Amino acid sequence: MADSRFFTANGPFTLEHILAVTGATPGADLVDPQRSFIDVKPLEAAGPEDVAFLENRKYVDAFARTQAGAAFVSADLADRAPAGLIPLICERPRRAFVALAQAFYPTERPAPAIDETARIDPSAEIGKDVTIEPHAVIGPRAEIGDRAWIGPGVMIDAGTVIGADTSIGANAYIGYSIVGERVQIQPGAQIGRPGFGFERDDQGPLKLPHIGRVIIGDDVEIGCNTTVDRGNSGDTTIGAGTMIDNLVMIAHNVTIGKGCTIVSQVGIAGSSKIGDYSILAGQVGVANHVTIGKGVILAAKSGVASDIPDGAVMGGSPAVPIREWRRQIAIQKAQGRGSKGESKR
Amino acid sequence: MADSRFFTANGPFTLEHILAVTGATPGADLVDPQRSFIDVKPLEAAGPEDVAFLENRKYVDAFARTQAGAAFVSADLADRAPAGLIPLICERPRRAFVALAQAFYPTERPAPAIDETARIDPSAEIGKDVTIEPHAVIGPRAEIGDRAWIGPGVMIDAGTVIGADTSIGANAYIGYSIVGERVQIQPGAQIGRPGFGFERDDQGPLKLPHIGRVIIGDDVEIGCNTTVDRGNSGDTTIGAGTMIDNLVMIAHNVTIGKGCTIVSQVGIAGSSKIGDYSILAGQVGVANHVTIGKGVILAAKSGVASDIPDGAVMGGSPAVPIREWRRQIAIQKAQGRGSKGESKR
Amino acid sequence: MADSRFFTANGPFTLEHILAVTGATPGADLVDPQRSFIDVKPLEAAGPEDVAFLENRKYVDAFARTQAGAAFVSADLADRAPAGLIPLICERPRRAFVALAQAFYPTERPAPAIDETARIDPSAEIGKDVTIEPHAVIGPRAEIGDRAWIGPGVMIDAGTVIGADTSIGANAYIGYSIVGERVQIQPGAQIGRPGFGFERDDQGPLKLPHIGRVIIGDDVEIGCNTTVDRGNSGDTTIGAGTMIDNLVMIAHNVTIGKGCTIVSQVGIAGSSKIGDYSILAGQVGVANHVTIGKGVILAAKSGVASDIPDGAVMGGSPAVPIREWRRQIAIQKAQGRGSKGESKR
Repeated sequence: MADSRFFTANGPFTLEHILAVTGATPGADLVDPQRSFIDVKPLEAAGPEDVAFLENRKYVDAFARTQAGAAFVSADLADRAPAGLIPLICERPRRAFVALAQAFYPTERPAPAIDETARIDPSAEIGKDVTIEPHAVIGPRAEIGDRAWIGPGVMIDAGTVIGADTSIGANAYIGYSIVGERVQIQPGAQIGRPGFGFERDDQGPLKLPHIGRVIIGDDVEIGCNTTVDRGNSGDTTIGAGTMIDNLVMIAHNVTIGKGCTIVSQVGIAGSSKIGDYSILAGQVGVANHVTIGKGVILAAKSGVASDIPDGAVMGGSPAVPIREWRRQIAIQKAQGRGSKGESKR
Repeated sequence: MADSRFFTANGPFTLEHILAVTGATPGADLVDPQRSFIDVKPLEAAGPEDVAFLENRKYVDAFARTQAGAAFVSADLADRAPAGLIPLICERPRRAFVALAQAFYPTERPAPAIDETARIDPSAEIGKDVTIEPHAVIGPRAEIGDRAWIGPGVMIDAGTVIGADTSIGANAYIGYSIVGERVQIQPGAQIGRPGFGFERDDQGPLKLPHIGRVIIGDDVEIGCNTTVDRGNSGDTTIGAGTMIDNLVMIAHNVTIGKGCTIVSQVGIAGSSKIGDYSILAGQVGVANHVTIGKGVILAAKSGVASDIPDGAVMGGSPAVPIREWRRQIAIQKAQGRGSKGESKR
Repeated sequence: MADSRFFTANGPFTLEHILAVTGATPGADLVDPQRSFIDVKPLEAAGPEDVAFLENRKYVDAFARTQAGAAFVSADLADRAPAGLIPLICERPRRAFVALAQAFYPTERPAPAIDETARIDPSAEIGKDVTIEPHAVIGPRAEIGDRAWIGPGVMIDAGTVIGADTSIGANAYIGYSIVGERVQIQPGAQIGRPGFGFERDDQGPLKLPHIGRVIIGDDVEIGCNTTVDRGNSGDTTIGAGTMIDNLVMIAHNVTIGKGCTIVSQVGIAGSSKIGDYSILAGQVGVANHVTIGKGVILAAKSGVASDIPDGAVMGGSPAVPIREWRRQIAIQKAQGRGSKGESKR
């Protein structure tokens, strides 16, 4: 059970209520629809008052041994349930489990209020039921959507649009940006500053005015201390549903598709494009003016300096197809052990 | 044209005005000095009311096809202009273009004002026409130069000196530092905290007092969420005109020369030296106590653990001369494909 | 001598006082216990009024040549002192030197005060002699230990516990956390936000509620702009005395032992474990669900995707034992030079 210092658990919930919340159906005769459950837990940790789930066949053994009182499971695996467990049949057990977890632990949000220490320009438009925490600054002509949450110390710069139900974490900066709905931006993110798009000649650096924007789609998440620069002309764009982790760098004029996963400490240089549903693992680096296709997967620490076609799975620096990368690694390891390679002769 | 939510474009400008601003001369008979232009754009995007430029011969074809109404170009390439384009002759077309872009889109700066919510120690010295945004904190004996801009939530710690015309982005921390003129520090940068310069013995970590400073030259830029530690004894120094991108780590007692370019997510460990005009591409790592010469170029993701002479172009980890690195990569790729290398023979 | 703009040096100190502070004994007849010293300096920089130290035999030559007036040294090396230097005999010369440095340059801390612009929830518990700087926000039921220092613009979220003598740097966020005593958290650190622990199915991302915490032991240091995510269920934990540098990423449910050293820009993915006293050099990446043993050393830029036993010294990506890594590098370099490897045969 979560620490009650920080989390307020709802419940207990009756089986009847759990079925109603998740759309599951009982896989055996439902002896007692009023039987109550107090928490959600993984198969190995769950007890008789907890609800677990099985989605991946790899965990069938753990399922067969679980002490959970009930578990979400697909119809074809329900017969692997141990005696005493109530199978809750559904097509997507993980999704049902998450729905129940969210019912037990709903996102806590204080009643909407605008703190008196926030500095809000009179020309800003503030929607309904907005929360603005202490010491936030809302610039001229900014627009804050309904039910948005603006954290303490945040700066929303002039003209910036924040969509409905979006939250902006403590001490973030958002400027020159159009941000969608239900977006979550974590503390310390810096969004919309001018890019590093200068050029040098022999008289020194030449700074072009950065007159582009940042466009962030609906349901995007941006992690703590991540930075997203605005375009120098044209925009930096992040597609709907894309998840970006902490300490990521997105440079000016980058285009990221929808549904992408960008793991911590990735850096994407100016004007590169990432196709929909691509996954960039931790510490990947992408050079400027590179086009990465849709559904591409890049292993951690990959370095990318040339275009990658749709669906490719790549690794290494410079990145190569995963099979080639594995062979590179095998040879490199063998050389290090002296078992093959140059020491062989 | 830039989004008017965020940017106010000056203009339109007459050809006469454009020539005055940039020092260019018309490359053909100037039929109408009052002809007006509304924006600057790249060759491919420009239309009859826009001004473009050609500097790199590589783009001569784009120049010959451009729809731009006018373009900056050097005298020897002016004859490649398409019919209808007015060549604006100058020695440095890119520099002229940037000057015109800055005339169209001048840096917007509100009228100087000190927000009543800022906390300014009575012993601090505040110059003329300074802006201090809401919730900033200026410590004892700090000195803020004329026309400086101190963003919201910034902390300028005790004794720190900020030069004239310097700007400090939202929620940055600057302490134990002497910062030059016309410096731009972006939001979330943390400058002048004690370095990670402890030592351990078997009784645990030994923390030496960090009694050095950070010295930042004129015209330096420091990106969002970048960190610069102060020296433990002696100083961390960044030379004039050096450009540092986002999420860079500069450790205690590092010396960076003038005119350097340090791209995002680079890390430079304690006491290392980077010579003037060197370029470190993204995610480069430099170990401690390393000396890198002047005019060195390091490819992205390079790892440097030993000294590098002036003018070297290096890549790889550990970094080697670029030619050797390219050969390493070619062999590695061939091995991965199984086409050459040890697995073949 | 440190810049008096920023640092107030105590002293001068008499030899008698120096011996009392450090427990050292004079290695020669103490001609004048009232002889005074003004500073601590390294062997090469010290003059007749400075105190230096020798611990590592590697520096015996520097010791023999130093101009220092006195130096801490172990009994067996004292006879290498140059004429005129007063050897100060002790078992741990570096530790004595640090103690004296701290006596010259004690950590300056203003008199405790709670700034009137701080927003403190009435239900928060504030200990004795706490400092809360301007514009900080202390949430409901938070507990701030005695003599803690809460920097400007900091947010301490609901329920979070900050131990005695702990300091939290400017604009940091700390939530869902139990923080020990004498912890130092630097500006811009973001501690306790939900991890990147979602899963996707074909209907999009599935966000499990993150109902875990962050537990930080005593005497931990966390660098500028570092991020530590809370557990999704269960906790993220950092053991006592562990030192974490700037721009490090610690993901959800990571366990770091005590006395570890985690250098800048390291990333540790979800649920991985780092044993006590391990050292991860700069830009190391650790994949998720990896267990690293005690006393492990990982060279800079290492990539770790599988478990590592206690005491291993590793390098490379993927990481291998250091001896193998050195051989890999030697082969790679030789191949790049064309002197050996595939091009030779």
